[in-house]
Amino acid sequence: MSGTDLFPSAIPENGTRDTSPTIVLNNGDPTMYDSYWRQMRNKCNITLNGNDSLSYFANGKSLCWLLESKLEELIKRLHNIVGNAIMDKNYIVVGTGSSQVVQVALYALSPSDQLEPISVVSASPFYSSYLDMTDFVRSKIHKWAGDAKTFEKDGPYIKLITSPNNLDRIIREPVVNGDQGKLIYDLYYYCPQYTSINSPANHDVMVFTISKCTSHEVAGKMTKFMEISTIGVSKEAQLRAAKILEVVSDSCLDFTLENFFQYSRSLMTDRWQRLRQVVTDNDLFFIQNYSPQYCIFIKDLCVSHPGGEEEDYEKLPKEHKIQTRSDKRLGTHSRKVRISMLSRDEYFNIFLKRLMTIKGSINRK
Amino acid sequence: MSGTDLFPSAIPENGTRDTSPTIVLNNGDPTMYDSYWRQMRNKCNITLNGNDSLSYFANGKSLCWLLESKLEELIKRLHNIVGNAIMDKNYIVVGTGSSQVVQVALYALSPSDQLEPISVVSASPFYSSYLDMTDFVRSKIHKWAGDAKTFEKDGPYIKLITSPNNLDRIIREPVVNGDQGKLIYDLYYYCPQYTSINSPANHDVMVFTISKCTSHEVAGKMTKFMEISTIGVSKEAQLRAAKILEVVSDSCLDFTLENFFQYSRSLMTDRWQRLRQVVTDNDLFFIQNYSPQYCIFIKDLCVSHPGGEEEDYEKLPKEHKIQTRSDKRLGTHSRKVRISMLSRDEYFNIFLKRLMTIKGSINRK
Repeated sequence: MSGTDLFPSAIPENGTRDTSPTIVLNNGDPTMYDSYWRQMRNKCNITLNGNDSLSYFANGKSLCWLLESKLEELIKRLHNIVGNAIMDKNYIVVGTGSSQVVQVALYALSPSDQLEPISVVSASPFYSSYLDMTDFVRSKIHKWAGDAKTFEKDGPYIKLITSPNNLDRIIREPVVNGDQGKLIYDLYYYCPQYTSINSPANHDVMVFTISKCTSHEVAGKMTKFMEISTIGVSKEAQLRAAKILEVVSDSCLDFTLENFFQYSRSLMTDRWQRLRQVVTDNDLFFIQNYSPQYCIFIKDLCVSHPGGEEEDYEKLPKEHKIQTRSDKRLGTHSRKVRISMLSRDEYFNIFLKRLMTIKGSINRK
Repeated sequence: MSGTDLFPSAIPENGTRDTSPTIVLNNGDPTMYDSYWRQMRNKCNITLNGNDSLSYFANGKSLCWLLESKLEELIKRLHNIVGNAIMDKNYIVVGTGSSQVVQVALYALSPSDQLEPISVVSASPFYSSYLDMTDFVRSKIHKWAGDAKTFEKDGPYIKLITSPNNLDRIIREPVVNGDQGKLIYDLYYYCPQYTSINSPANHDVMVFTISKCTSHEVAGKMTKFMEISTIGVSKEAQLRAAKILEVVSDSCLDFTLENFFQYSRSLMTDRWQRLRQVVTDNDLFFIQNYSPQYCIFIKDLCVSHPGGEEEDYEKLPKEHKIQTRSDKRLGTHSRKVRISMLSRDEYFNIFLKRLMTIKGSINRK
């Protein structure tokens, strides 16, 4: 989920069962696929027995000893079907969410023999959790150095490239291009439901919701981090992930099944159109225009009539129990508030209803 | 698994399907319960549907927003039945294995406003992974300071107390007793199948295979670490853990079920007696004596006729494809090799057979 923000401090969906729930759109909790999985009914069911997966080891012969072979096979299969990554002769390292994988990659790419920590940068608007991931235990091996656009590159550094980017959906290329730079491609959104897949990605270190990297040494260090950090990755989660990847792959090949990516894309396009309609009827906000293939996922509501520099653009929606996210924490400063489009259908509908009422209530003031 | 060592470099069980497998007894891969869960057949089955657990949030109203309510309830139930921990008015923080929970507790207890990292100590023989857990990302907030017995305590420190201890099974009390010390009790083995439960533990920070801690502030920091590190804990693993805890609790109350702890204890006692017999017939090793309640879990094979100081006590068993662990890495220096007693039945039997052949083969030389 590297492309979105998660704020447990915000009230989550299942914590909002009061008469007037706060609509939380400032995290990327990806619940919108609920409707798809419901209609797939029991096709994704897995049953675990009491004596399944008792050993810490998933595949003792593999460099990533914690990776279930079945999952490895299905990751490669889906990437080949979707065509978003070249998986030949690569090592796959699985982690508990892409957040862990990004930290694991930072650890593996950081020189362990230096006195000074290596700088970690990303081009704004960057995923706001990169800073925490890099610095939260105040490591001596790496430190957050902010916006790659303004980074003075002398000496080695690590650059996190979210492509397509989390805020503007634009395919990113390295901004800093020093030969001493090590690149981590965070490709969470490089999937057909979020963006157009023009060519398969093929970088040294690529992070999907499950990660892969090419270097034996790096993959080994990443696995060591997993061992020390969490002694591997939940096998229950891996086995279920394998099952889900299998069904998603099948849905791309078997015409009796609804194609997961087409379904998701059309669902997002529908939400996008309904949101645009509401915003058009309500001149408090406008939607920043992106070229269609990049704008189906995150919406930026720009304030039409902003106040001074210090204006809190989250305030107005908040008064109507809509939690949004200004882009201050994303390394940019504009009049945007950011919303996630990934909530459940019923939840998204409440959001639209509320957005419609904002203007009216302002006129009553 | 804080009490044992895990070495993925060693050949794991499921990586040993050749004609002459290496018997790996230098990690605590807990597969010995396989026989119990097999006989419980489908009582522990859980089935997950495609649309289960889609949200990152497990319990938005709880401080530990990632903890499944069902799991929390069953953790408390089992602790109450077993009587090994007081669970009233405590916060439970769940992690991906106790290794993560120990790191999370170190983070939460380390002052964030100090220039110098806080010292982390443990009394030898300590769990050899504590060093890695503390130092592997070279954090500026805490650093490993070694054996608590020789630690000069000026200023604050954190002490890891494995009780019962991982090597000698002895119930530990703090060695360093400075008032500036923060204690983390690692109680992985404080369960009826491993040791006698004399009284319920009631410390500020206690780590079981699932963790709990009393301070709201500490629990909050621990949860924050989880969020940054792995965005929570696999729900599949939590739901399965809940099911297993439920069955274990039931087995203590329902006389039609075989009591899990009695079964495990008798299984270990049986292994212990058979090992003792083999070792008695073979004067290369002897088993260090502990009082019965502490010696049912880990065996120390002491070399009867050691060579010089530099003798590699792992060498002889290794020649017979038995991977053991000398206690050099545990902060002590004796003539012991350590073996895990937690392997599968068939695996343990091969180990005993091989141990019997050692002397014979030496005589043939």
